[in-house]
Order: sequence, then C-alpha cells, then structure tokens
Amino acid sequence: MPDKSAFETSSGLSRPKIEAARDRILGMKTMVVAVSGNTDTPEIGVSPFIRREDGLYIYTSHLSQHVRDLLACGVATCLLCADESDSQNIWARNRLKFTATATEIGRDDTIFASLCDDFAATHGPTMDLIRNFTDFHMLRLDPDTAVLVLGFAKAFRLSGPDFEIVAHLSEA
Amino acid sequence: MPDKSAFETSSGLSRPKIEAARDRILGMKTMVVAVSGNTDTPEIGVSPFIRREDGLYIYTSHLSQHVRDLLACGVATCLLCADESDSQNIWARNRLKFTATATEIGRDDTIFASLCDDFAATHGPTMDLIRNFTDFHMLRLDPDTAVLVLGFAKAFRLSGPDFEIVAHLSEA
Repeated sequence: MPDKSAFETSSGLSRPKIEAARDRILGMKTMVVAVSGNTDTPEIGVSPFIRREDGLYIYTSHLSQHVRDLLACGVATCLLCADESDSQNIWARNRLKFTATATEIGRDDTIFASLCDDFAATHGPTMDLIRNFTDFHMLRLDPDTAVLVLGFAKAFRLSGPDFEIVAHLSEA
Repeated sequence: MPDKSAFETSSGLSRPKIEAARDRILGMKTMVVAVSGNTDTPEIGVSPFIRREDGLYIYTSHLSQHVRDLLACGVATCLLCADESDSQNIWARNRLKFTATATEIGRDDTIFASLCDDFAATHGPTMDLIRNFTDFHMLRLDPDTAVLVLGFAKAFRLSGPDFEIVAHLSEA
C-alpha cells in the first residue's frame, strides 16, 4: 500500500475521497465562463459542456458578449459549482475552477458532427435545434491552472485535462 | 388596468411572471463574483450574500485572489444562477447577472454588527465563527447594469437595487 500523499496528510482527506468529490463536480452539466473583455468588469455566461480525453467542450452563441470576447482573446476562467441544494455548508459550495485556453472546432472539422452528437446525448434534444445555428461555436477548453475547493482549508491544485490532484493549498 | 409594457408584448411573458422568476433567483443564497485582475483571465469566487434596500452584501476573505482584486479595483461582475436541479432546460438556466460597484463597510461602521447578524440569520452559525476573522471584509455591491435571462430570447434589462424590469433584450 503506497504512502499517503503530502496533500492527504496536510488536508486530512484521503485521495479517494477527494477524487470522488472532484468527479461529482465534473458530473455537473454546465459551467460558468468568465472572460476579460474590453471593459473593467468581466463578461460572464453559463454553458452546458461535455468532456473528452483532450479537454472540455462548450457549444455557445456569439450573440453573447462573453463569447465574442472569448473568440477574440482565446482564454477564460471556468467554474463548475455544486448546486446550492447539494451544499451542506453554503459558505463552502464544492467547486472546481480553472483557467483555460479555447480552440474553435470548425463546422468543417471531421470531429464536429460527433461532438454535436455527444452534446445531444448528454444534454438532450435542444442540440438538434441549435446544431445548425451558425451563431454557435464549438470550443475546446484546455485546462491550465485548476483549483478544487471542498471547504475551508480544503483546496487542492489539479493538473491537466484529467484534473489530477497534485497539491493541497493553504489558500484559495 | 394598465396597458401591457413593451417588454411584456415582445417577450410574451407577463410582468408578474417575469418578476416571480426574478424574485426566485434573488432568493438564491450565493453569488458568483468575477473580477478583472492583473492577468488575462478573470479571478472568480462564490459568496453567500444578503440583500438590503440599498444593495447586496457579501462577507468574504482576502485570502482569495478575487477578493484582493475586488478591494483594489472596486468593480465586479456578479451572477446568481438557479441550481441545475431546478432548471428544466439545461441550455437556459435562469440567471441574473450584473456589474456592481463595491464599497467596504468597515468593522467600526455602526451598521457592521447588524449586517453580521443578518448574515448569521440568513446563512447560519458559520458566521459566528468568522465574524471576527479580520481577513474577511464586508462589502456592499451596488448593481449597475443588470440582465435577467429566463430562456432563449427571454432576456430582460433590469435597473437599480430593486432590479426593476425595464426592457426586453433581443440579445444577452
């Protein structure tokens, strides 16, 4: 049996327990997307997402300012947050936030159709209505810096598209 | 009986129905706070809030980067969003977003204690634990531009700390 990781010792939470909480949050259907635009306050939106091995995908309309800004600047801060109704302590909703680089998947890309199919399978028939709307863009989000918050003094640094747990943070 | 407002006619939703949806969202316990910091991606956090006639209040720690940035720049974008489990169509979670100016209420301010009491009454005993933590700051958020989203093509411009409905938006 392997030794405890440093993050398990310092946080008092076992790796399986942290991973289970992380995976529960990754099971959310939507994420908040915040983008630094041309004003002094961020633009912000909410998008259904799907996960693949190489990242997370959103399908979202440029009628929203935050999407126009994201297409222009290519980076965003994303937040997956447990429902309030699932939060035992409202002061510490379990959540995963990460910065990400966005890459557009063109409509003529060979994987575009299969991504749309995955969205329809995950998020229902609305996708069939909007998949041909050309104001919508398919974007892959590659996570950069990621933090998982599971309560006061229970924050963890994650790494890569698998959100591997790498460290316990003293602040978040 | 007054004529229908323009926003009722164009959106197909009655004022009482829009107001009821707005008030349901304002009954959320927490908000997302996004702040433009010193990097190319926004800093973001989640905070319990209370409402008073003059604005919304959060009590939040400067151990979080978004709070340090908010104390420095004084403006944020805020998001109140219905739980996923309350959302009939995951593509359109009901939500209220607004830009806001933040003003700190000092610990020596005459209203500080009563605000802490309101937090404890609304959000439970955690407040009794953290009310003397000096890394926490009491901030009033004065809403500026606000948008209520109740589905595709169902977005409304709101005005003032009462979030009065003023217009139906063709985009949001």
